Amino acid sequence: MYYKYNKITTAVLEKFKILLGEENVFVDQETLSHYAKDQTEDLYFMPEAVLKPINAIQVSSVLKICTSESIPVTPRGAGTGLSGGALPIFGGVSLSLERMNHIIDIDVNSLQATVEPGVITEVLINVVEQLGLRYPVDPGSKGSCFIGGNVAHGSGGPRVVKYGTIREYILNLQVVLPNGEIIWTGANTLKYASGYNLTQLMIGSEGTLGIITQIVVKLIPQPKHDLVMMASFPSASKACGAVSAIFRAGITPSALEFMERSGVEWVTKFDNIKFEVKDGIEAYLLIEVDGNDLIQLHSECMQISEVLERFGCSDLLLGESSREKEELWSIRRKLPLSVKANSVYREEDTVVPRAELPVLLQKIKEVGDRYGFQSICYGHAGDGNLHVNIIKASLSDDDWHNQLPLAIREIFETTIALGGTLSGEHGIGYIQKQFMDIKFKPVHLELMRGIKHLFDPLNILNPGKITP
Amino acid sequence: MYYKYNKITTAVLEKFKILLGEENVFVDQETLSHYAKDQTEDLYFMPEAVLKPINAIQVSSVLKICTSESIPVTPRGAGTGLSGGALPIFGGVSLSLERMNHIIDIDVNSLQATVEPGVITEVLINVVEQLGLRYPVDPGSKGSCFIGGNVAHGSGGPRVVKYGTIREYILNLQVVLPNGEIIWTGANTLKYASGYNLTQLMIGSEGTLGIITQIVVKLIPQPKHDLVMMASFPSASKACGAVSAIFRAGITPSALEFMERSGVEWVTKFDNIKFEVKDGIEAYLLIEVDGNDLIQLHSECMQISEVLERFGCSDLLLGESSREKEELWSIRRKLPLSVKANSVYREEDTVVPRAELPVLLQKIKEVGDRYGFQSICYGHAGDGNLHVNIIKASLSDDDWHNQLPLAIREIFETTIALGGTLSGEHGIGYIQKQFMDIKFKPVHLELMRGIKHLFDPLNILNPGKITP
Repeated sequence: MYYKYNKITTAVLEKFKILLGEENVFVDQETLSHYAKDQTEDLYFMPEAVLKPINAIQVSSVLKICTSESIPVTPRGAGTGLSGGALPIFGGVSLSLERMNHIIDIDVNSLQATVEPGVITEVLINVVEQLGLRYPVDPGSKGSCFIGGNVAHGSGGPRVVKYGTIREYILNLQVVLPNGEIIWTGANTLKYASGYNLTQLMIGSEGTLGIITQIVVKLIPQPKHDLVMMASFPSASKACGAVSAIFRAGITPSALEFMERSGVEWVTKFDNIKFEVKDGIEAYLLIEVDGNDLIQLHSECMQISEVLERFGCSDLLLGESSREKEELWSIRRKLPLSVKANSVYREEDTVVPRAELPVLLQKIKEVGDRYGFQSICYGHAGDGNLHVNIIKASLSDDDWHNQLPLAIREIFETTIALGGTLSGEHGIGYIQKQFMDIKFKPVHLELMRGIKHLFDPLNILNPGKITP
Repeated sequence: MYYKYNKITTAVLEKFKILLGEENVFVDQETLSHYAKDQTEDLYFMPEAVLKPINAIQVSSVLKICTSESIPVTPRGAGTGLSGGALPIFGGVSLSLERMNHIIDIDVNSLQATVEPGVITEVLINVVEQLGLRYPVDPGSKGSCFIGGNVAHGSGGPRVVKYGTIREYILNLQVVLPNGEIIWTGANTLKYASGYNLTQLMIGSEGTLGIITQIVVKLIPQPKHDLVMMASFPSASKACGAVSAIFRAGITPSALEFMERSGVEWVTKFDNIKFEVKDGIEAYLLIEVDGNDLIQLHSECMQISEVLERFGCSDLLLGESSREKEELWSIRRKLPLSVKANSVYREEDTVVPRAELPVLLQKIKEVGDRYGFQSICYGHAGDGNLHVNIIKASLSDDDWHNQLPLAIREIFETTIALGGTLSGEHGIGYIQKQFMDIKFKPVHLELMRGIKHLFDPLNILNPGKITP
């Protein structure tokens, strides 16, 4: 289907200014440039205007104007996305939710909070922690990303392995539909069996079906203690093998992160982190356990260490004090940025059933050998979710632009053959659309297009995303 | 929109027989009568034929015939539904999944199982328990209901409070669409951010969008120990108040069930259960904690008992042995059937934010006083999910049929004003359609109708359900 969009005229711009106040409508080059990119590689799509509404009513009014004028609208959180979801491919409006950053209510009796989409995830985590509560969804970018973006992309993070995905923590959403109508998708309840679940449909829809303007999240009691371990292995397959065995021993860690040697080397090299990468070590697991009883946690660490030994773990560091735990965690947390800061790269967000991780990793290396690229892999091993960072290094531009997509296609073909999918937590957005045909039958893609058309018949909301 | 259906002709019946084998096509009155009802009150809708396919290919072929012949198809699990979801309102085919009852695979490394929809929930629970694993979705009818029906209705049960809803445990679904196409909705992964989530859309869609023919579920390690407590309270509001306070004390029980005195009295009266209902007691909480460390669980029980005391708990029984635990649980488990076996009744599946339960309960009693009916309330207090059993007793037929719906409407208006919804775990099905207007704006209902039309343009699949 072909959609024709109109440019934003001076008259329309005036309407936006009257609606939002002049100071919340931007057309200067510097602002437009900033909103032309996110953290996805080197992509750049200029919006024609950046709008910063303050509430759902303003969002609704903007969408009504854009519907009647056929102007594309791309919602934007903190711009930390890794799939190009916030890029205004067709220009038009970049609708930033950054001013809608209030925690509206924390209900300590029902253990729920109502927040606006522009709240930084870590801000919410810290505020509820002060009340003895936990919001357990903590993506790597938690210090800067917005919770609205997390919901839109189905974001994950290390704690999914114990606490479940973001889907389990989003109870209700206030959404503005493309025609300007405002609905609540669900109810403020822990259970919901009341017709088609639009809350769940909206999660992971990447701002293509509606604009999220309020979010009701579930909170849980904050566990009182945690312990962190860093385990070294002679091979990646040994490390991955240990992952499944930990669960088989009856323990569900609160984080179970995998890192390749090369990744840890980059961190120690570029981030001034004191950690000795020993000879003969090829992979690491960062393991966290949490709970209310410290003695029990130490006992779990003992049981885990017995499992790890069976898989050739030669070195096991235990973090007990806050400082020690933070030091171990910082290796994992700083890994993505130290990889990205030092080379042109491309990141793939592969995910397979937990036990298939070694097979996937082997295939990635085999493909890399064949196409001549180095990859640095790390990720949420407990979830089978492996971030593959492909490093450009000495690859020619031609290989990088023309051969690499073929290599990535091979990787995804294996991922999907192993029971996996195209993205565990980064989303499809703009850059992964090209691989959708590997995973989905035409009838499946037609259903996705049909859902999009149902919510957004004029295709004004974040066009050019998800479906090829 | 108006849909015209055709009757099943002899020629069509012949096609079904060739397809499924004569022995799996039923048109005798006894069989038809059995499939004309489920466990929802006193409703009765005769199908024209009952079909029992053995695999997705057969389901697909049946749907292709029914699409081309405009014959309605109502999928059916074990018939334990409480909202009339399996009733063939417009006749046609009752498609029973009872022969598709195989556990296809249990992957103890990735902690997943692949099952057919006709597997009895408790069979799966028991089989994985033998492997030290848990499938934690245990609806009240787990001994007879099918897992396919659980998925279709978004069923819950006592353990949702700690382990989350069924949505967290369904990774992937094989679904036959009304046109006969077979798709897998997702991937066999713990995380999934790959376009609109059709797995989540299918969960709770009550067999109106497609027929589920395989289910991949997530498993977790089986906790090694559990303890059960039964606490007595002088008032329902005290008991409900204690529920929130337990979570505030930092403890997440694995079950937290509420029972009114009158309900427990019915069980002891009709089910020959030995349990003394003492004077001055108006409500009970059944509390279960589970985990790997028994000492830790006893400590949690101590902490809980301190909380309960503050809310006037006068009597606290602890179940430690299997027999003791089973005795306490059986009071709660036998409650629904002993209420239902002894009176014409109507059950409403209200759900509100946890802390609003006392307010809701008070309103239910107030409405009951005004309209002259008795209600017996019990349910999953930890989830804010209250089953309201309205007893006909001496109400006239006129009051029962004409006045009661008005009373129920008042109850739902309160439920929704408190942030709740029409059903926590029973679904909308046939009987709750009439109340959808209380919860949903017209634009929201239109989106639901649009989704239905997208998947099933001829409206042959379970017509007459969910949307009014």
